[in-house]
Amino acid sequence: MDQFFIDASCIKGDRITITGPEVNHMTNVLRLRRGEKVQLVEQTSGLTYICSIDVADAESVVCIIDDVQSESRELPVKITLYQGLPKSDKFEFVIQKAVEMGACRIVPVAMKRSVVKLSAERTDKKLARWNAIAASAATQSKRGMVPEVSAPMTYDEAVQDAAGCDAILLPYELETGMEETRRILTSLKESQAGSIGIFIGPEGGFDVSEVERAAEAGAHIITLGNRILRTETAPVAILAWLTYIFEE
Amino acid sequence: MDQFFIDASCIKGDRITITGPEVNHMTNVLRLRRGEKVQLVEQTSGLTYICSIDVADAESVVCIIDDVQSESRELPVKITLYQGLPKSDKFEFVIQKAVEMGACRIVPVAMKRSVVKLSAERTDKKLARWNAIAASAATQSKRGMVPEVSAPMTYDEAVQDAAGCDAILLPYELETGMEETRRILTSLKESQAGSIGIFIGPEGGFDVSEVERAAEAGAHIITLGNRILRTETAPVAILAWLTYIFEE
Repeated sequence: MDQFFIDASCIKGDRITITGPEVNHMTNVLRLRRGEKVQLVEQTSGLTYICSIDVADAESVVCIIDDVQSESRELPVKITLYQGLPKSDKFEFVIQKAVEMGACRIVPVAMKRSVVKLSAERTDKKLARWNAIAASAATQSKRGMVPEVSAPMTYDEAVQDAAGCDAILLPYELETGMEETRRILTSLKESQAGSIGIFIGPEGGFDVSEVERAAEAGAHIITLGNRILRTETAPVAILAWLTYIFEE
Repeated sequence: MDQFFIDASCIKGDRITITGPEVNHMTNVLRLRRGEKVQLVEQTSGLTYICSIDVADAESVVCIIDDVQSESRELPVKITLYQGLPKSDKFEFVIQKAVEMGACRIVPVAMKRSVVKLSAERTDKKLARWNAIAASAATQSKRGMVPEVSAPMTYDEAVQDAAGCDAILLPYELETGMEETRRILTSLKESQAGSIGIFIGPEGGFDVSEVERAAEAGAHIITLGNRILRTETAPVAILAWLTYIFEE
């Protein structure tokens, strides 16, 4: 059953009316017709409406609500990914995969060894594209929310932003100690951490001063194992670990 | 320090001589010169030779052995990935990421919902390319071995092949139960499983008959969490989980 995100304002009684660009996607791309079932997610309430399509024309898709579900497909911990800005195609990959793996927010961070520099003008265009990728991945992976890709931050801004999280994790390739890493991650579960910030270095890795800065701010410096992971693989690995530990 | 794989026959006394296509890569692409350090891994022994380059010319690179290390970067469990054959670019991605994440062998499997069909002739060409991708990923991620991409198998052949593993895991999107999944994976660690086979469905997922066939052969049917993962993301997630559990 295909899933779509809707605004609360679309819901009137037992009907949900979808208008705007999603209509073309539903009727012309997916060729959804009267009688077919769809799953509509309203993010604010976290409710999922199981519906049958009543009318599907060029302007709108009208659905009749058959059932309402409140179970969430969301992880019980809110994860923000602070990703050292890599090359463009890699960052788009990171957004797609991080959304699939359950991240709630993705923040591109200009780090010392980031090769890419973004001008303000290019950033606006990129940000729209990045958020479209996040929305598409959220639909495909049947998330209960659309994660936001925030505007790029400097490293200091990112560390300040992450101070709002219950815990910060920074995987570092020069760090060792799986036992200690497992101990740290298990303790986050035991202490019922509600939010976690993850820092991932760009292609060239973290500068040692960046690792120190995060450690001063209370970040746990961890390992992701004995092999060297690329900058776009590391967020998938740590998000998988947190899923393994936190998923209910 | 760059890493390369060598044959035992290259080692003579305190010197290692590299010839063949790797020479061009070392001298012209990476521009390695006399005096620079490299890390040379001999797979059969599992030994890593820390060397200084003595001669680098058009035909060969001669290295002097400074140190020999026997610590392994390999996981203590041998993992074979039986991947439902997806579209070409996705399979190449799966090879790269599975090698980074520690898989020892990758087997493309023709499953009922695989869209791609390979002719024998195309398979030979593809197999060479797939193994080159595995070798490159092994070098980059500093593996202690080069994982093999085997020739494609039918589903029955794959199930028979996997019978040689201590355990078989099959993540299935219709399966639920994180608690039970964690219990199964922890028990594999406790029973010191030395080899694990992982079955991953193609884009369209497993046919239910395939899941039943694997279950009859003793596979554990598990979940990867509450979100829907793409066929190329699922192997990364389960390999990350096994790393978390088994890495020492």
